[in-house]
Amino acid sequence: MVVGSVAYDGVETPHGRVDRMLGGACTYISLSASFFAPVKIVAVVGDDFDPADTAFLKSRGIDLTGLERVPGKTFFWQGVYSDDMNDRTTLRTDLNVFADFDPKLPESYRSQPYLLLGNIQPALQRNVQRQMSETRFVGGDTMNYWIDDFKDELLATIKTWDFLRINDSEAKLLSGESNLRRAARKSLAMGPNTLVIKRGEYGAMLFREDQYFIVPGYLLDEVFDPTGAGDCFAGGFVGYLAECGFDLARDRIDRKHLSRAVIHGSVMGSFCCEKFGVDRFRTLTRAEIDARYREFKDFTDF
Amino acid sequence: MVVGSVAYDGVETPHGRVDRMLGGACTYISLSASFFAPVKIVAVVGDDFDPADTAFLKSRGIDLTGLERVPGKTFFWQGVYSDDMNDRTTLRTDLNVFADFDPKLPESYRSQPYLLLGNIQPALQRNVQRQMSETRFVGGDTMNYWIDDFKDELLATIKTWDFLRINDSEAKLLSGESNLRRAARKSLAMGPNTLVIKRGEYGAMLFREDQYFIVPGYLLDEVFDPTGAGDCFAGGFVGYLAECGFDLARDRIDRKHLSRAVIHGSVMGSFCCEKFGVDRFRTLTRAEIDARYREFKDFTDF
Repeated sequence: MVVGSVAYDGVETPHGRVDRMLGGACTYISLSASFFAPVKIVAVVGDDFDPADTAFLKSRGIDLTGLERVPGKTFFWQGVYSDDMNDRTTLRTDLNVFADFDPKLPESYRSQPYLLLGNIQPALQRNVQRQMSETRFVGGDTMNYWIDDFKDELLATIKTWDFLRINDSEAKLLSGESNLRRAARKSLAMGPNTLVIKRGEYGAMLFREDQYFIVPGYLLDEVFDPTGAGDCFAGGFVGYLAECGFDLARDRIDRKHLSRAVIHGSVMGSFCCEKFGVDRFRTLTRAEIDARYREFKDFTDF
Repeated sequence: MVVGSVAYDGVETPHGRVDRMLGGACTYISLSASFFAPVKIVAVVGDDFDPADTAFLKSRGIDLTGLERVPGKTFFWQGVYSDDMNDRTTLRTDLNVFADFDPKLPESYRSQPYLLLGNIQPALQRNVQRQMSETRFVGGDTMNYWIDDFKDELLATIKTWDFLRINDSEAKLLSGESNLRRAARKSLAMGPNTLVIKRGEYGAMLFREDQYFIVPGYLLDEVFDPTGAGDCFAGGFVGYLAECGFDLARDRIDRKHLSRAVIHGSVMGSFCCEKFGVDRFRTLTRAEIDARYREFKDFTDF
């Protein structure tokens, strides 16, 4: 089960520009996870939400019972990437119907085993968690805004999580440590048993109390649009765990499978960047995913 | 055989400051390589060169027959690192006796099988290579200054190399490509059969016509002083090849051993950062090197 934003994005990269396309953290996470396990989403859209987009999500087997449709416009975000695509500038953020998002879970959602929370206000993330009854696994994302201005609320929220995913600058901000190893140690002490730090094109790192794993980023010939890559990582990571029936409790997953979950996350993040928005997921196949997994093995094994 | 600068450095990092200590590319490369194979150096120092430094190099079994001592002062470099240590500012560069460095090889050096050229003027690198008779392997380093202002001379030099080591921004500058995969392809077309791109704390990549390998950087608890880490990488990489008797011709090394050479380079670069200057190499043991190699295996294997 995935909670977060379903949105429209306007994106400009050195490879082109799209004024309006399907986006949002919940969308990226769900599409990515849908290649591994059945997905249910909780989100809100306006009455401008395109039936073609609903149809696409459904075609990936995503349960939309929890996708509320209310009068008004869907969340809209617009941004432009720098030439090397390592920076982006937000040009516009219209929260629209997302401003009043207060997720209520359908009865059929409440006993889902895997809960992945997109980057929304920590108090809302906690509200969702409270409505669940048999969750084996809770994880999510946050960002500098919540770390800076909602620190106490955020700490109370992630305290009960199994899995926290942030990027390297957020890890430093959250922990107050400039060294990543120490930042990871401090972040784990805040509650989660598993921390994933994303480093953009440089890859990802997983930390637990007794182990760590690092994978470099996949080298694409062209990065068309990095929007959503981190969310697709999360979808692949948790989707793989769900597919295998693992969660992050110490006795229910081994070292190898944890690392393989990170690789599946990385694989999905890399595919995400190959086309604008979610377009790559319209044609992606499990065989392509498995082939890229083997490629990761080839270029990292020694 | 290693050619390059033997120098004194003044370095300031967030962890402290040393006004004058042994440094220089040739020094770092040689010390690192000396843990794997016998090393001979070609360099020049002034009459201020400290006998204690000569003794230290000798204690590592390094052949100093080619270390010229001339009247004047030894090359001096002074720099200060930014808080995150990803940037450094050069405060002073006194070439001193290094300004007239024109390497002449002792007779006993001319049939060495492995030649590693530190970052000096490309024409000098070529002069050294011409004096060698039975070299199986030639590789080296360069920098943005030579790429910008001595491009033709540089291209004529690296054309006959087996191995080129540069960092990611130099690879982009040399090739005119912002994408690393394409930058690597173009750089290989310039001559070297093997390209290593160093990415500082993010690790290293090796490219050949038919394969590539990527390793993330080692996570240190404290980076004391990153000066020389790239040179120590090169020393470990070539030192390991020399120890095993491999060179980079296609039929004389396999994929696994190439990757292992990259790991040995990474291991040596990581040790280099643990203390100021070359200090870590005063106490380092082969057992520590082998243990860190296994650690790399542990945190990258899946």
